[in-house]
Amino acid sequence: MQDLITEKEIQLLNAYWRASNYLSVGQIYLRDNPLLREPLRIEHVKRMLLGHWGTTPGQNFIYVHLNRVIRKYALNMFYISGPGHGGPAMVSQTYLEGTYSEVYPDISQDEAGLKKLFKQFSFPGGIPSHVSPECPGSLHEGGELGYSLSHAFGAVFDNPDLIAACVVGDGEAETGPLATAWHSNKFLNPVTDGVVLPILHLNGYKIANPTVLARIPEKELLALFEGYGWKPYLISGEDPLTMHREMAALLDKVVEEIKAIKERAATDEHAARPCWPMIILRTPKGWTGPKFVDGLPVEGTFRAHQVPLSDPAAHPEHLQQLETWLKSYRPEELFDDQGRLLPELLALAPAGERRMGANPHTNGGLLLRDLRLPDFCEYGLSVKERGTAGPGDTLVAGRFVRDVIRLNLESRNFRVFGPDETLSNKLDAVFEVTERQWEAETIATDMLLAKEGRVLEMLSEHQCEGWLEGYLLTGRHGLFNCYEAFIHIIDSMFNQHAKWLKVTAELSWRRPLASLNILLASHVWRQDHNGFTHQDPGFIDHVVNKKASVVRVYLPPDANCLLSVMDHCLRSRHYVNVMIAGKHPSPQWLSIEEATLHCTKGIGIWEWASNDEGQEPDVVMACAGDVPTLETLAAVSILRAVLPELKIRVVNVVDLMKLQAEHEHPHGLSNADFDALFTKDKPVIFAFHAYPWLIHRLTYKRTNHDNIHVRGYKEEGTITTPFDMTVLNEMDRFSLVQDVIDRLPQLGDRAAYLKQQMKDKLIEHRRYIRENGIDMPEIREWQWKGK
Amino acid sequence: MQDLITEKEIQLLNAYWRASNYLSVGQIYLRDNPLLREPLRIEHVKRMLLGHWGTTPGQNFIYVHLNRVIRKYALNMFYISGPGHGGPAMVSQTYLEGTYSEVYPDISQDEAGLKKLFKQFSFPGGIPSHVSPECPGSLHEGGELGYSLSHAFGAVFDNPDLIAACVVGDGEAETGPLATAWHSNKFLNPVTDGVVLPILHLNGYKIANPTVLARIPEKELLALFEGYGWKPYLISGEDPLTMHREMAALLDKVVEEIKAIKERAATDEHAARPCWPMIILRTPKGWTGPKFVDGLPVEGTFRAHQVPLSDPAAHPEHLQQLETWLKSYRPEELFDDQGRLLPELLALAPAGERRMGANPHTNGGLLLRDLRLPDFCEYGLSVKERGTAGPGDTLVAGRFVRDVIRLNLESRNFRVFGPDETLSNKLDAVFEVTERQWEAETIATDMLLAKEGRVLEMLSEHQCEGWLEGYLLTGRHGLFNCYEAFIHIIDSMFNQHAKWLKVTAELSWRRPLASLNILLASHVWRQDHNGFTHQDPGFIDHVVNKKASVVRVYLPPDANCLLSVMDHCLRSRHYVNVMIAGKHPSPQWLSIEEATLHCTKGIGIWEWASNDEGQEPDVVMACAGDVPTLETLAAVSILRAVLPELKIRVVNVVDLMKLQAEHEHPHGLSNADFDALFTKDKPVIFAFHAYPWLIHRLTYKRTNHDNIHVRGYKEEGTITTPFDMTVLNEMDRFSLVQDVIDRLPQLGDRAAYLKQQMKDKLIEHRRYIRENGIDMPEIREWQWKGK
Repeated sequence: MQDLITEKEIQLLNAYWRASNYLSVGQIYLRDNPLLREPLRIEHVKRMLLGHWGTTPGQNFIYVHLNRVIRKYALNMFYISGPGHGGPAMVSQTYLEGTYSEVYPDISQDEAGLKKLFKQFSFPGGIPSHVSPECPGSLHEGGELGYSLSHAFGAVFDNPDLIAACVVGDGEAETGPLATAWHSNKFLNPVTDGVVLPILHLNGYKIANPTVLARIPEKELLALFEGYGWKPYLISGEDPLTMHREMAALLDKVVEEIKAIKERAATDEHAARPCWPMIILRTPKGWTGPKFVDGLPVEGTFRAHQVPLSDPAAHPEHLQQLETWLKSYRPEELFDDQGRLLPELLALAPAGERRMGANPHTNGGLLLRDLRLPDFCEYGLSVKERGTAGPGDTLVAGRFVRDVIRLNLESRNFRVFGPDETLSNKLDAVFEVTERQWEAETIATDMLLAKEGRVLEMLSEHQCEGWLEGYLLTGRHGLFNCYEAFIHIIDSMFNQHAKWLKVTAELSWRRPLASLNILLASHVWRQDHNGFTHQDPGFIDHVVNKKASVVRVYLPPDANCLLSVMDHCLRSRHYVNVMIAGKHPSPQWLSIEEATLHCTKGIGIWEWASNDEGQEPDVVMACAGDVPTLETLAAVSILRAVLPELKIRVVNVVDLMKLQAEHEHPHGLSNADFDALFTKDKPVIFAFHAYPWLIHRLTYKRTNHDNIHVRGYKEEGTITTPFDMTVLNEMDRFSLVQDVIDRLPQLGDRAAYLKQQMKDKLIEHRRYIRENGIDMPEIREWQWKGK
Repeated sequence: MQDLITEKEIQLLNAYWRASNYLSVGQIYLRDNPLLREPLRIEHVKRMLLGHWGTTPGQNFIYVHLNRVIRKYALNMFYISGPGHGGPAMVSQTYLEGTYSEVYPDISQDEAGLKKLFKQFSFPGGIPSHVSPECPGSLHEGGELGYSLSHAFGAVFDNPDLIAACVVGDGEAETGPLATAWHSNKFLNPVTDGVVLPILHLNGYKIANPTVLARIPEKELLALFEGYGWKPYLISGEDPLTMHREMAALLDKVVEEIKAIKERAATDEHAARPCWPMIILRTPKGWTGPKFVDGLPVEGTFRAHQVPLSDPAAHPEHLQQLETWLKSYRPEELFDDQGRLLPELLALAPAGERRMGANPHTNGGLLLRDLRLPDFCEYGLSVKERGTAGPGDTLVAGRFVRDVIRLNLESRNFRVFGPDETLSNKLDAVFEVTERQWEAETIATDMLLAKEGRVLEMLSEHQCEGWLEGYLLTGRHGLFNCYEAFIHIIDSMFNQHAKWLKVTAELSWRRPLASLNILLASHVWRQDHNGFTHQDPGFIDHVVNKKASVVRVYLPPDANCLLSVMDHCLRSRHYVNVMIAGKHPSPQWLSIEEATLHCTKGIGIWEWASNDEGQEPDVVMACAGDVPTLETLAAVSILRAVLPELKIRVVNVVDLMKLQAEHEHPHGLSNADFDALFTKDKPVIFAFHAYPWLIHRLTYKRTNHDNIHVRGYKEEGTITTPFDMTVLNEMDRFSLVQDVIDRLPQLGDRAAYLKQQMKDKLIEHRRYIRENGIDMPEIREWQWKGK
């Protein structure tokens, strides 16, 4: 039975809240006089006022109350600030509880520390205005809105004792990703996973508009969350003491419900999906701030969004109003002479790692353990004859991933995520050892669904990405498999994660995370039954715009190379790794030993396919990606037959970043090494998986760049055969041969004749597929015929 | 009062449905023997079987019933197929109603036409398997899932008599964009806009998983949609005749409710937001298809998703089962000897433009009328002294947009969309003539909200983009304003729209649409109070990967140029235009006459800022974007002071595609013209708004490419001053001057001295801002000092 909260406790809670609000306003405004020991003068105020007050007092309110239940129930809880912009709240809170000063000793627990705390906020050389990586306890910055709830769920998967208290702003709640994230409760196992406690903060306004959820009837609001499968509790008001009393009682109730659900689930394995509690908190935007400024209402309106008193320098009455506002929190009753929080208030914060700013899950690298990995070589295909088709590259890699799952079943720290494409992407083998985790209803004919499983699939790339990010940020490992074209859905999420990685890498107290591994199967060249809408290889263009220190792109040409790359990616730390691989039966070129060596180098000459024999070649045939490699080797086969005297070098690229200059990417080749592969002056015909100009963007500074001719996807495609796709984009073997011929002036009159032969082949192909709907047998059955 | 449907009518509806299902199976499987006049043999079957059967019979069912109410109530309705992959359904339906043969006379209404109809589906040289642009009546392809409902709402804004019947798949319903799109009902005016009738098709399965919405209790399902503010009607079953009876009765009821809502709204201007009806239709996936294949259940399971009988060539029993399946629809009772649909069935389809495949709104170019545009020159800033700060470029453009709105208020064919950023992006002026359209609750302190307004704002970039696409696809005009970084949220939607534009441009019967105009304000260089998370200028990298024929990118350097560009974009057709502009007070360089000329050329020498005086310069200072232009002119000012003998040419780029080769983009300069601007061999220092390598990707084939040195955003930034942002990315004036010095060997020993001067300036700057939090006065007050 829950104890009722005493009035004394209420007063203390309120004092702690006042302290945090005081620190928040101080951060937004002050550069000096942090305890108002002297009358506020304009030189105490920052000259550029930047920050978001609106969401801050509500978040302070929530944090203070979460502290209370953490202590009361000994909870392992952390805080996600969906509104993000309310950086001052979390900075104030972690400062008050002591974690901020532990991480940044220079921001000490005294007046000098307060002055620095205030000045650094939203100030050049200081800290951003969001709940950024610099803030202890944060694993979600929230600058871009929409992903708080997905991160929260990702964080608690496989952390059965952890509670993610996730504040969702009512602005954020309008975004698509957030709107579908409420359904995550159908994927959470109440025994083996932790708990997400969403707190929808109905502040009422976005930047300049009211929010949708604040302007629908209460009946609809409650129905919506009941429909999402939650048990909503609405709390609404603005009188501080009343609100403290109600919030304390409600949180007790909610925590006890959570505990009851966990206990029921632990004892009854057939229990139906629980209806987890959630809180809807309706408070005025900019609560406790100025009610009116210049005669216009501020508190409780959109005008409270950023800085309510925007220009005290130009308006003396604003300066006065600011001082009154700051003093309304009565700092002299909260801090001692040295500027330290009074002991009876400090006692309200949890201790040690129970402080939300110090919860180790929010600095996941602290908890990260290596995966147990099988020897990937044991999954390698044997290669009796080069170019013989294997069963499909991702299918082979799926066996390796299966055993990664198997070996780490006990440690419960590896998961596979996908938007209902894990089977389509041919990772079937994983289902030999696990199932899809599914907490919604099941029927007799279902397959591969279970209450606990290592695979999470929802038809939302946003959810998959957000869950995985949350999982990684809390110190675990994972793999996201996705159709290549639709990974663009999470372009912006990738941006934010890459930025998070870049900034955290520069913070000594943050520990490296496992890499975000993205496997793009079902790629642009093999959309046989989906066509043009499913063709876009541009994600890597997007990826390489981010800091070179955190992005890696791999294009394994066959199954054995994919195994080597996958092993490498799963071992790596603090990158985003993008792997692009095919799922259809396709040629196997390298033995597993050769593949390992090739992938370790990342780029190399395929001597068995070349006939330059260590000399300067007449032409370099370069390729990156499985389909381009096939067409390149087919072209080489043709060239060897029709122009046996031609000295050809075949260069295959697995690690795309090898092409970039060494000072631009840590993997970049030196110019000397690049020239040794691509020559200084010979024609290079480069068949590339994606948009051709990416190769130019990566190589424009190289000696031989002017001679590099790239073929790739140029936005031509429809439902057609695999080979015809390469024809439509002029990357097919016959076109590549023509590209070579065009660059060999020594051929003289033979050139026209040879080119006509290639053109005739293409006409024949076109006629054949229009009649039969499939590729010509000689194309389909083609193997390496170079020798 | 509604008439009860007769049994005779039910039988006819069912026959029509059988006919459409027959045609759908025929499309997936047959290449010959379309009416089964002889026993089915393997050579009648396609060799590659590609298509999605699962969703198809349910969509045929819906379409047949919509036809009935269109006729009964004389509705102006069209059809959106959210599941998209069910292409065979809409192709079958438009063929049966006659529109398909009108658009494609070769697909005639006889046996020969049927044979072609079947063979072309998912066949090289034929049509895609989705509801692609090739299909009459389609304005939404659905290859990528998530946008059907947003498109539906976009289509009915300002079309008060139009009803969009929008089939939402339960897979699609899991996506984020779709999950928030249900809230569009808070933005629809029941008097001046049309109606969206969502039909959630609970098929039960995605590719390989059950769907979330099919596996929650009915109570939650209904509560969810009530919470979204709809009135849900659930209809569920599998017996065809029963289902026909129930669906007919339900649709009568729903249409009468819709009419009642419209009438009430028209007569009571204070009516509360209506609760529009929606339908939840639960039918088995692959309804009427094989119940078992190879002993495994198919109908009603995920196995019905694509091709239930996947390889008749290898399994003779599958061929037999296919024939039985086809014959189960009794084609001999549906088609006459010539293969034409029987007249009593044909009579069930609506006539003329009431046929959903012939509704002119689905080929919006047919309805498109030019905007009335004011003379943009009248909004131009006068330029007494070059470089004097204007009030903010977007603020000036906002006045022009205001009057575009005003002039087209009556025609109701222009709207502004934004994720709550229209004010933040400084388009304030638009609110002088209109308000935000808002149908949710209001309170006394609200501003700029109205039941009818030209501005639509929801905090979802997906919604803004989807609504605008739907608005354009139905023949209207619009502008999307967005923060630059967060436009990446709709990268994938842009992809699909660009692909739609490319394909429709190749279809002679499709008419050009108004361009999709995207104004990116609040750009990378001016995130003074948001910092690193809000900095990403990479959308244009993404855009230029799409077909050159449909993409345009503009970087107006000042307000007058933005006016000219905006005017041009609003007049253009069938492009995606991306405009990037600043919102803060910033220098005005060109008079409106100069700006018009400059923007018309798209690129040019700024002679007033150059001192090469028609001769070959020593260095070319190029710039694109407002901030880069400022820093470039500041650098030129410094150079003119310290190196007066240096011949400098300033080139400004507004139309980015001018840089690309003329055979790659219609706007591309010839090599001769490019060389005339950039010289053949002089150093070019290029300050660029976005990631620097994009300039290399566009210019790598140019004569002087090796001498082009680009500065731009290189993923460095935080909360700091505007000038410091350029310093962090080495694009500031002092760094640009150093770049020039580095390329002037003739300077000899002076170079080191001059460079040190620049470095000292940067150190001074850094010290100043860390102390004061703002830029040095000399930076802030800087004007053009070149002369």
